[in-house]
Amino acid sequence: MTLLLEFLASLRSVRHFTDRPVPREQIDQILDVARWTGSARNRQPWRFRVVMDKAVQQRLSRLGQYAGHLAGAPVTVVLLSADDGRTDTSFDLGRVAQTISLAAHAAGLGSCLATLYPDDNVAEASRVLGLEPGWLPQHAMSVGYPATSQQLPPTAISAGRLPLTALVTHQEPAARAD
Amino acid sequence: MTLLLEFLASLRSVRHFTDRPVPREQIDQILDVARWTGSARNRQPWRFRVVMDKAVQQRLSRLGQYAGHLAGAPVTVVLLSADDGRTDTSFDLGRVAQTISLAAHAAGLGSCLATLYPDDNVAEASRVLGLEPGWLPQHAMSVGYPATSQQLPPTAISAGRLPLTALVTHQEPAARAD
Repeated sequence: MTLLLEFLASLRSVRHFTDRPVPREQIDQILDVARWTGSARNRQPWRFRVVMDKAVQQRLSRLGQYAGHLAGAPVTVVLLSADDGRTDTSFDLGRVAQTISLAAHAAGLGSCLATLYPDDNVAEASRVLGLEPGWLPQHAMSVGYPATSQQLPPTAISAGRLPLTALVTHQEPAARAD
Repeated sequence: MTLLLEFLASLRSVRHFTDRPVPREQIDQILDVARWTGSARNRQPWRFRVVMDKAVQQRLSRLGQYAGHLAGAPVTVVLLSADDGRTDTSFDLGRVAQTISLAAHAAGLGSCLATLYPDDNVAEASRVLGLEPGWLPQHAMSVGYPATSQQLPPTAISAGRLPLTALVTHQEPAARAD
């Protein structure tokens, strides 16, 4: 496997961070990579709010069942989705979230995604962040330097992923519904 | 910018391909990378159907307004979403789609996503693919060797992306709704 493929396969969620600060310029560089992510009809239905204010991070960390890690991270990047009710928007937010996670990984940083829910909590997050209407803070990401080494090769980590044979089927001519 | 960040920022959609065949082993290697993608509660709500049958690809290419490129690609990878009605599922499918696009890019291949819609077309794609219930073919990806060079640096391509200043805001204490 090439180095690039190994890099892509080695991304893991990181929920514990050192106190080492992350410069704003490094976050901007990561988001500058992420803005090249593709989206349906190039709508780019995302905006990003960078939060390094501990009090705000702690309030956000209580707005989703698995969002607790937001309180302990040097940086929280809130992903804002266009409030257009489109399924495509969720899909495209997933694409840009993956780019951000990988760009942080490339920069030696760890990250972990959190979903803010239900709707009441999304509305509360909007108030906490002072957002304008039209953008929903449905996802947020912790970013920081990993507290422990994440350098193990993927095959050495038991992360409970399904094997390839359980995920992939090949279309055989016999399966065609002609 | 590091080589890894440049790699991530250089991904572009490729809709035109050479006739050079893509070995099944190479597709499997790309999907073997993609299966390490994170998902909410590690549900891995995705499956993949690899299609190299031109007749099937042509039928799929008519099941979405912008899906025409599926007919001309050496390989179509259909992304199957768990039919659970969860917003998280669309988001997670976007994450894995981005990993697949980047892994193909790392392997020297180009790719382009297509959305299959509306629901009638998704149902028709299920029939064409002979899918079991529970999995929806809402997205498909063309994969192949690019017909033209995609080696330009990102800054040299006018892809209509918003500038960083239009995408990112920083949380200032004054914006807090305390």
